[in-house]
Amino acid sequence: MQHIHAKPLTDQQLQGLDAYWRATNYLSVGQIYLLDNPLLREPLRPEHIKPRLLGHWGTTPGLNLIYAHLNRVIRQREQQMLFVTGPGHGGPALVANTWLEGSWSTAYPNTTRDERGMARLFKQFSFPGGVPSHVAADVPGSINEGGELGYSLSHAYGAAADNPDLVVACVVGDGEAETGPLATSWHSNKFLDPVRDGAVLPILHLNGYKIANPAVLARIDDEELTALLRGYGYEPFLVEGSDPATVHQALAGTLDRCLDRITEIQLEARSAAGHPLRPAWPVIVLRTPKGWTGPRTVDGQPVEDTWRSHQVPLTGVRTDEEHLRQLESWLRSYRPQELFDEQGRPVDALLELAPGPALRMGSCPHANGGLVSRALELPDVEEYAVPVKAPGFADGEPTKVFGAFLRDVFRQNADNFRLFGPDETESNRLGEVYEATDKAWLGDQRETDEHLSPDGRVFEILSEHTCQGWLEGYLLTGRHGLFSSYEAFVHIVDSMVNQHAKWLKTINRLDWRRPVPSLNYLLTSHVWRQDHNGFSHQDPGFIDHVVNKKAEVVRVYLPPDTNTLLSTMDHCLRTRNYINVVVAGKQPQPNWLDWESAALHCARGIGVWEFASNDRGDPDVVMACAGDVPTMETLAAVSLLREHLPELRIRVVNVVDLMRLQDAGEHPHGLTDAEFDALFTTDTPVIFAYHGYPSLIHRLTYRRHGHDNLHVRGYIEEGTTTTPFDMVVLNNLDRYHLAMDVIDRVPALGTRAVATRQYFADQRTRHRAYVTKYGEDLPEVREWRWIS
Amino acid sequence: MQHIHAKPLTDQQLQGLDAYWRATNYLSVGQIYLLDNPLLREPLRPEHIKPRLLGHWGTTPGLNLIYAHLNRVIRQREQQMLFVTGPGHGGPALVANTWLEGSWSTAYPNTTRDERGMARLFKQFSFPGGVPSHVAADVPGSINEGGELGYSLSHAYGAAADNPDLVVACVVGDGEAETGPLATSWHSNKFLDPVRDGAVLPILHLNGYKIANPAVLARIDDEELTALLRGYGYEPFLVEGSDPATVHQALAGTLDRCLDRITEIQLEARSAAGHPLRPAWPVIVLRTPKGWTGPRTVDGQPVEDTWRSHQVPLTGVRTDEEHLRQLESWLRSYRPQELFDEQGRPVDALLELAPGPALRMGSCPHANGGLVSRALELPDVEEYAVPVKAPGFADGEPTKVFGAFLRDVFRQNADNFRLFGPDETESNRLGEVYEATDKAWLGDQRETDEHLSPDGRVFEILSEHTCQGWLEGYLLTGRHGLFSSYEAFVHIVDSMVNQHAKWLKTINRLDWRRPVPSLNYLLTSHVWRQDHNGFSHQDPGFIDHVVNKKAEVVRVYLPPDTNTLLSTMDHCLRTRNYINVVVAGKQPQPNWLDWESAALHCARGIGVWEFASNDRGDPDVVMACAGDVPTMETLAAVSLLREHLPELRIRVVNVVDLMRLQDAGEHPHGLTDAEFDALFTTDTPVIFAYHGYPSLIHRLTYRRHGHDNLHVRGYIEEGTTTTPFDMVVLNNLDRYHLAMDVIDRVPALGTRAVATRQYFADQRTRHRAYVTKYGEDLPEVREWRWIS
Repeated sequence: MQHIHAKPLTDQQLQGLDAYWRATNYLSVGQIYLLDNPLLREPLRPEHIKPRLLGHWGTTPGLNLIYAHLNRVIRQREQQMLFVTGPGHGGPALVANTWLEGSWSTAYPNTTRDERGMARLFKQFSFPGGVPSHVAADVPGSINEGGELGYSLSHAYGAAADNPDLVVACVVGDGEAETGPLATSWHSNKFLDPVRDGAVLPILHLNGYKIANPAVLARIDDEELTALLRGYGYEPFLVEGSDPATVHQALAGTLDRCLDRITEIQLEARSAAGHPLRPAWPVIVLRTPKGWTGPRTVDGQPVEDTWRSHQVPLTGVRTDEEHLRQLESWLRSYRPQELFDEQGRPVDALLELAPGPALRMGSCPHANGGLVSRALELPDVEEYAVPVKAPGFADGEPTKVFGAFLRDVFRQNADNFRLFGPDETESNRLGEVYEATDKAWLGDQRETDEHLSPDGRVFEILSEHTCQGWLEGYLLTGRHGLFSSYEAFVHIVDSMVNQHAKWLKTINRLDWRRPVPSLNYLLTSHVWRQDHNGFSHQDPGFIDHVVNKKAEVVRVYLPPDTNTLLSTMDHCLRTRNYINVVVAGKQPQPNWLDWESAALHCARGIGVWEFASNDRGDPDVVMACAGDVPTMETLAAVSLLREHLPELRIRVVNVVDLMRLQDAGEHPHGLTDAEFDALFTTDTPVIFAYHGYPSLIHRLTYRRHGHDNLHVRGYIEEGTTTTPFDMVVLNNLDRYHLAMDVIDRVPALGTRAVATRQYFADQRTRHRAYVTKYGEDLPEVREWRWIS
Repeated sequence: MQHIHAKPLTDQQLQGLDAYWRATNYLSVGQIYLLDNPLLREPLRPEHIKPRLLGHWGTTPGLNLIYAHLNRVIRQREQQMLFVTGPGHGGPALVANTWLEGSWSTAYPNTTRDERGMARLFKQFSFPGGVPSHVAADVPGSINEGGELGYSLSHAYGAAADNPDLVVACVVGDGEAETGPLATSWHSNKFLDPVRDGAVLPILHLNGYKIANPAVLARIDDEELTALLRGYGYEPFLVEGSDPATVHQALAGTLDRCLDRITEIQLEARSAAGHPLRPAWPVIVLRTPKGWTGPRTVDGQPVEDTWRSHQVPLTGVRTDEEHLRQLESWLRSYRPQELFDEQGRPVDALLELAPGPALRMGSCPHANGGLVSRALELPDVEEYAVPVKAPGFADGEPTKVFGAFLRDVFRQNADNFRLFGPDETESNRLGEVYEATDKAWLGDQRETDEHLSPDGRVFEILSEHTCQGWLEGYLLTGRHGLFSSYEAFVHIVDSMVNQHAKWLKTINRLDWRRPVPSLNYLLTSHVWRQDHNGFSHQDPGFIDHVVNKKAEVVRVYLPPDTNTLLSTMDHCLRTRNYINVVVAGKQPQPNWLDWESAALHCARGIGVWEFASNDRGDPDVVMACAGDVPTMETLAAVSLLREHLPELRIRVVNVVDLMRLQDAGEHPHGLTDAEFDALFTTDTPVIFAYHGYPSLIHRLTYRRHGHDNLHVRGYIEEGTTTTPFDMVVLNNLDRYHLAMDVIDRVPALGTRAVATRQYFADQRTRHRAYVTKYGEDLPEVREWRWIS
């Protein structure tokens, strides 16, 4: 690991930086403790102290140090930088810095840069009605919450993509560094194009401890750590110490060197002809004490430089005289009288050290992505529609057709759109995009490789976490994207989705945050068509997970065929501040609707399919369906029932927009009760064939008048590697079972139905015998076509 | 990276190993393609070919190679080994090997080691009614499904813990190596005690490609790869080549060296006094072609050693004469006539190369953990019960009391129990366990560290994935454990839970698999008490996720106080083949039930709390509650209602076992309708205060008679860093709101209730004003006690 021995700071610069650092440390401690008396105009008394002391001090001084030093290089180089706070628990640091530089007051004009504003700043922190203790969306300049750890570096790389002039400084905590998502995201450097993308400068901050334990990377020796970072493909630099003056010089020299290196790498790559090699980008390892400058010992126990400084080092301040005294001397150790004037305003010498408004990290326009976001240029989706002369007339592979649309989205949006996936783009039949762009790849290439290029705009790595992190970073900085995943494995990012949904909910409530492009999922290779992969690849529960989030944020679509998929995706790509989940098949399957019908059906989100219905306004049964496979089985059941029981009046209702099922009062897309009743009636049996776990339909509809008539079929965790039809049979979602369900619920059908029901049951038995013998579905199932 | 140049194999040994490898390759290709004619007694015809070709060839020859070589060292050293197949898609390899060595026929006696059995083996693979294409639970010797990638190495380390004589060979694929969970699990070596634990030998298999892309680790140069593995703390050895004879010698020499190294490390550590240092365990990098020995080219395209060999290299075998011919010559290239006798039995020369029954990897008793599992020795839980003179009389911190119980579980089960958590054991108030054991830690130690030791049995790493992976590995090899996590962040392992639930469902259906200890979660630091951490730490949706799994596998408990927590955990630790989710608080809160009542209440799982009810068998309203905070708010609401509306007849129902709410037909714990109706009535309003998302209660109860009377309050994604009472107010779960809900639903209360309702509404307003001013809850809330 390299140590930089240059001492680039003059005494005055060093004192300035140190004062800036002291100021932000003071402001941080103030937030954790003070309800009043922010400038210590009088000796601290218990009533100046918050009744509940909540916050994380341990990581804060390190963040403050880094931020102050980045300000220096920003000013010196007029470099736009984005700051990603991996140790997101260090909220006090980012709140302090953005207030000191002016960004906080720009976002929250009530919180002025003076004594009154400072008092407000202190009180609001971790206080009811105030701001959370983490670097949440409330903090200007942030794109990474950091409450849940692991995503800072992938967010940083996502932000850098297609932003060639941006440097993203990303602090990675040694706690966060233990998470899986973070551990693999170091490899993002194999996907960053030094020509077209910006740079990421990771700063691994080793302060030694997590909550109550040492951190792994802080307790391996320098040789191992150097090897690890070189193994990840970086050039590591070490800054280490607990003497502020020494660390200031070392960090300043190292930052100068790293920024120089970034410039060199970019100049070289951008001036060279042909494809650049993958450079070894610099990484800084900063080893400083946890809770640095805080109390050395409390009640006789060591605190600074131990895990005891993780949260609130002095906990008894309101009741323990000694703690109160210690807090006061801690605060005064920063010499606030030198830092703030009589009105509580930061002194000019400090203000001059912050970058001007355009380059302040707290005001970085990329961090408020909606500000800089451009709408996608979308081709006319109708051009891609497949002809459907009659419902069910021709098969199609929906995602393949959508791939052509996506190809042209790439063509029309050279630096504003990316596709993300864990090595499944081709498998998910979206391969036509490779006519417009390649997969990003900075590694070695062989002759047999295809579609790899340093400036490819399809991101593929076998890490759903990294895909999701990159995409979130890309979206939160205002660009557009799509994550295409196997349905089952999108659960890998459940928790990341939670955090993104929370972020979107929060920015909806912040007037200074502008809406960002939606997080779009295309879940294909879904539960019903895991012919190859079987049980481990079958899980439709991501929808259940998503609908727990705020209704204002989540949308779920189940287009049943090609044209409805096109219409749905065209819509989703135009939206902002949503999480759009689209589930669609990649296998050849019937197309039901021509373009005009598809567009209308998607606009309505739910509707009666007249071509399949014969209810003349008064159905004996409603057959509802959501999802491509359930739709096909429903229509096949309708065919069977029409053939065998022609007198039965059936209404077919197809659901594209799942949230239409929910109450209008619960979800903005929800049908009113009157609308719902008009479709489903209040007294007719409804056989509902659903793509996922049946209980979700009950959960969405339990308040509806006709709910007790609802009978849902869906995935019940049965089946494994088998044929497509066998899968639906094993889960009782097949045409025969649906038809039997109808017979069971329409007793008026009488005796003829008894024999018919037996015939359907026998067909199921025949199928099982056939499929286990021959390994394929019954010919009449394979060859079945809807006859209009 | 070290290359071993020794050539330890005699010609005869080399030929034997190669024959064994050819046999398993033959058996693998047979599984993918053949429906009949398994020994190629006649030229292949289309009807011998499966109609649907499903499977993964690419990774298979590498797995076969490793398995054959491990057999050699097992026999030579009489070493018990467990094989973990990271590239779990390579199902054919493990099916082939376990059949060849005899383990398959032991588990499945119908599938004999002869022609008939071979035909059955081939047909069943990826065939309806047969076995899945991955290394699922159906495969003897497996503890790692590998359908979803990323967990092989943490499973391996979990299996090695407390098994000092075991060596776990873990093949890590280069695709899997890109996942986050795998990337961080290399650090498991910092937690493995060379004295008390066994060894893990990772074999990183670089065959170059994932599905359609090169793999990251296969395209960094040897220098970087060496640095990476050294950085992870290992001593790397490289075996590389595409000439079988050369690779056989190199792999044999390297395995000898690595096994020697493991023995040396263990001997040294076990003979030394004092604490061992962390050794650099060996790791093997095996670089061989993807789809090795398969078709070089197909239809003019290169296949072997490219991504095209990932699945089925020849896809047109049934219709394309040339493909069929190619398949036949591919199969014959393994010279089956030398490998199997006239009856299709493996020739003796092969059989002799497999270990004897006791040491076959497919029969490894640890891989069928239920076989070797011993029940936990549990202390008498009643001894830990807290006295509760009267309901609500004394506060307690439930998890702290449970910690004392857990301490003694450690004391009584020296090598059979472990606690896992992402650095939260202390935070979750389970710190008393450190009186019995330490945290596992092989790294450097400092003076200020506490409770760290190489032989500590508490596993803490800031990676939920690694904790879960270790625990699964530990459980599936028959031992017991508990995962204690913040409630919100257990979502990080949602997808791992899916896979484990599928594994448990599968082993329930396999008569040769014995039940394994349950996967136990204690979710504390839950949604209602994120006073410090706020919005990002609030998510109760894991329960929703879990209840989608098979009812036979999942159990969910919400003990409302200390003694019910003790009783619940005592029960869960005795169970097998379940996923037990227990949600309980760590904060001081009222204790409601003495031991006797608690044990009875937990045995019933749900019941009327008579002490809080005054309904005399005919309630005006049922107030139901599940979860500690909702229970407290419900009882506080009851107090308020009794005070203000004494004539109101209230029944309080508390739910500990959430699945009691579901239909008896849906879940084994489900109440019958009669039981449910007896508790909730069919015509009385029910105000249900629930710990998590309200819709879950509707989902569980939608079929119940009284469902339409059910009104549920729970978490609606509101609130952030704030006081405990403010959290419930912001989510309308507070005592005042619950009381208002009652008034709204019991119109018979008349006019007096109007004023009372207004008073409750005013109290909510008063609270909001007070809390945002003073930062703490209203005194009457803070000081509230239930008066029996």
